Amino acid sequence: MRSSFEWKRANGPSSTNSKMDSSGSTNNPKPHAIHPVPMKRIGIADTTFARYDMARSAIKEIKKNASPEIVRYTVPGVKDLPVAAKKLIEEHGCEAVIALGMPGAAPIDKVCAHEASSGLIMAQLMTNRHIIEVFVHEDEAPDEEGLARLADRRTAEHAINLISLLYHPERLARLAGTGQRQGYEDKGPLEGGSGH
Amino acid sequence: MRSSFEWKRANGPSSTNSKMDSSGSTNNPKPHAIHPVPMKRIGIADTTFARYDMARSAIKEIKKNASPEIVRYTVPGVKDLPVAAKKLIEEHGCEAVIALGMPGAAPIDKVCAHEASSGLIMAQLMTNRHIIEVFVHEDEAPDEEGLARLADRRTAEHAINLISLLYHPERLARLAGTGQRQGYEDKGPLEGGSGH
Amino acid sequence: MRSSFEWKRANGPSSTNSKMDSSGSTNNPKPHAIHPVPMKRIGIADTTFARYDMARSAIKEIKKNASPEIVRYTVPGVKDLPVAAKKLIEEHGCEAVIALGMPGAAPIDKVCAHEASSGLIMAQLMTNRHIIEVFVHEDEAPDEEGLARLADRRTAEHAINLISLLYHPERLARLAGTGQRQGYEDKGPLEGGSGH
Amino acid sequence: MRSSFEWKRANGPSSTNSKMDSSGSTNNPKPHAIHPVPMKRIGIADTTFARYDMARSAIKEIKKNASPEIVRYTVPGVKDLPVAAKKLIEEHGCEAVIALGMPGAAPIDKVCAHEASSGLIMAQLMTNRHIIEVFVHEDEAPDEEGLARLADRRTAEHAINLISLLYHPERLARLAGTGQRQGYEDKGPLEGGSGH
Amino acid sequence: MRSSFEWKRANGPSSTNSKMDSSGSTNNPKPHAIHPVPMKRIGIADTTFARYDMARSAIKEIKKNASPEIVRYTVPGVKDLPVAAKKLIEEHGCEAVIALGMPGAAPIDKVCAHEASSGLIMAQLMTNRHIIEVFVHEDEAPDEEGLARLADRRTAEHAINLISLLYHPERLARLAGTGQRQGYEDKGPLEGGSGH
Repeated sequence: MRSSFEWKRANGPSSTNSKMDSSGSTNNPKPHAIHPVPMKRIGIADTTFARYDMARSAIKEIKKNASPEIVRYTVPGVKDLPVAAKKLIEEHGCEAVIALGMPGAAPIDKVCAHEASSGLIMAQLMTNRHIIEVFVHEDEAPDEEGLARLADRRTAEHAINLISLLYHPERLARLAGTGQRQGYEDKGPLEGGSGH
Repeated sequence: MRSSFEWKRANGPSSTNSKMDSSGSTNNPKPHAIHPVPMKRIGIADTTFARYDMARSAIKEIKKNASPEIVRYTVPGVKDLPVAAKKLIEEHGCEAVIALGMPGAAPIDKVCAHEASSGLIMAQLMTNRHIIEVFVHEDEAPDEEGLARLADRRTAEHAINLISLLYHPERLARLAGTGQRQGYEDKGPLEGGSGH
Repeated sequence: MRSSFEWKRANGPSSTNSKMDSSGSTNNPKPHAIHPVPMKRIGIADTTFARYDMARSAIKEIKKNASPEIVRYTVPGVKDLPVAAKKLIEEHGCEAVIALGMPGAAPIDKVCAHEASSGLIMAQLMTNRHIIEVFVHEDEAPDEEGLARLADRRTAEHAINLISLLYHPERLARLAGTGQRQGYEDKGPLEGGSGH
Repeated sequence: MRSSFEWKRANGPSSTNSKMDSSGSTNNPKPHAIHPVPMKRIGIADTTFARYDMARSAIKEIKKNASPEIVRYTVPGVKDLPVAAKKLIEEHGCEAVIALGMPGAAPIDKVCAHEASSGLIMAQLMTNRHIIEVFVHEDEAPDEEGLARLADRRTAEHAINLISLLYHPERLARLAGTGQRQGYEDKGPLEGGSGH
Repeated sequence: MRSSFEWKRANGPSSTNSKMDSSGSTNNPKPHAIHPVPMKRIGIADTTFARYDMARSAIKEIKKNASPEIVRYTVPGVKDLPVAAKKLIEEHGCEAVIALGMPGAAPIDKVCAHEASSGLIMAQLMTNRHIIEVFVHEDEAPDEEGLARLADRRTAEHAINLISLLYHPERLARLAGTGQRQGYEDKGPLEGGSGH
């Protein structure tokens, strides 16, 4: 019924940077019977609006830490991310999704980001799967180079969060209440708050 | 049960501009068996509130790039777009929809646009189909002629996005993170952000 | 199961103004077999909070333009309208609903109107039916008489929109992009925007 | 399956004020067969955050005007009201609910109230039942005594609205467009607005 | 089908502080047949973003007052809490959840908190279970030590609310309208409001 839908494996914008394992099982969403632990599939939803290839940062970090299949889905802007993430989960079999966006600095952009975020939360509630939102606002850094570094770092750190959620939830529990930040220095636990 | 619903094929406001293929299959939402690749059907939802015939821009651009059937559904204002888009998908068999609106400049209009946008996102989540929102705010250009040009250009560029989503998703992936804008100059990728 | 629900046919606040066709088929939501075109049923949801009997304007205009059955449902305030509209559709068999309200001028009233509008959009998405919202804000006119005129005119013009959606969708398509306003002068199409 | 859920009949905070009919049918949500008109069950959801026992005002007024069974459900704050109201409807068989809250005066409290209101509207749309929201903001009156009077009066007047919705919908229709207010003086219909 | 999901019993961040009963029934969500009253299971959702281990406060207080099984689920930030809470309910069998977060002080953090709160309310409506939200805003106290005390106290008091909702709803009813606050001094009932 939905066979006309087209999708692609993530391979980054230039094939020379692609290190994805794409050994043939693409069209078969069910793991091979000989796999004792089924390989997880992770979705990456990103935008053409963003001014930095956040997906590349995500793919690089994911592959450093685990070996899931990765499906990438690029849409025009952040408001297209909720349905893209939901389709990655429901039509492409992804266990979880990382949704990457770079909203602009104008007031209308803030509203768009709010609408997108609300939609991403609803998509999670409708699927019972995690969609990690990584938004970098264009006014978060003083210059373009700083913004690029922020986008790279925040995406990479959230990619690790996603891996932890799927493979190592105990790692997140160990960090609970420790003031983790993604893209900035961690704030750490409150002074005077440990002795209870 | 819903046979009383009436709809029309898109043919633009004046029939002289109509170049739609309307050769008889209107009442049959299923593609003919002899079609090896079923023709996609695209919905256009627009408003009488808008001060520019954005649907004409969309139809023109879609027909330049692909040959889908087009169904047009005109409603009073942007808050009527979410259900119109959902009906286009669920009752008229559209694979995707482009939702066109031109919110006013008053604060209440901004609230209306926000409500409409939230509804469009929810409609997508309920149907797992893309609804590309094209809103042009009446205060986005200094004069009426500029606003008309903006409306035409943004609609056309988003029509291409819709075609890419349906027929050529790899094109969007190639543009990921490159700062695409619709109706304005593209902002391009961040300076100093490419070398990672 | 829900037989205890009580409802009434719309007849306006004073019976002398009632010109409703109520010829017996009230308790039978299915059209008679001899009707070649089934009569549509339209719902009107209004409030006791409003300071103008907008429903009367709606009924008058609807009856001028078509002969649907009309079901009226009065609730305390605009936040009660979404469920009232949904009940009109799902429990009273209405094809579409016009939701009438007159939010106050205080900031809290603006928030209430926003919540009500969001709910009306959701109700439409849940039912795939149109609910035309007609809200007149108490601070939209300089005096009470002007506000009354605005309420009457906007309601009437939106009643015509509802009739068009149900009976004459091609009329709306002909007006697409022409800057229609309800209750105010139409703004018309943009200058310099027609020649594309 | 949900038998572990505990609930209580409403009897006010002190038993001396309780005038509730609690004659035995508590555990049997279905009316006795000998009832020609089944007794309605009304839910009251209130909070420990509120600084006035609004439920007592509601119970008193409801009992003055009708004889429904009443089920009371107290939660910590207004954001807990939506699910409480939905549980009253779906798990305790209530035909309708009155949701009572007293949001604080700080900006964060206004946000909480907005979230709660949105949730109450969604709960209504999910159940097709009315949930009358009665919120009294802590900054609506100049002193505590005035606030108490406002809370009592608004609750009582909305309790009457609830009774009308369930038993006498024609009463609300008669008041449509007449500027009813709950807790304050009615504003009445617009001057110059009656002669259409 | 979802067997790959991993979860852990709550035991606090350091095992020396763990006093959880984890005697073997972990993998069996159904209570033993010999339990006359089935043991309830409570979920705790918390974040690595928070700067205080609010979950420890919650666990300590819950164990002082009842003997439920506790399941802890740590996510990166507050916007991940809604789906975490829903998964605790639907995939881990929790009767109710306490959702712990510490939003930052910047405007964007306030928006995130609002989105998270709206999602938590929706998660409750989708499951008919309570999710008690405990958010401590980073700007609610003048210094870090005060913030830590506030986080500890508010969490503990809301943990008691959760216990009351599940085990002793009559306790909440007795406190209805008495101005309870969590983390701050209770405000108490309104002066002059008791004599009605």
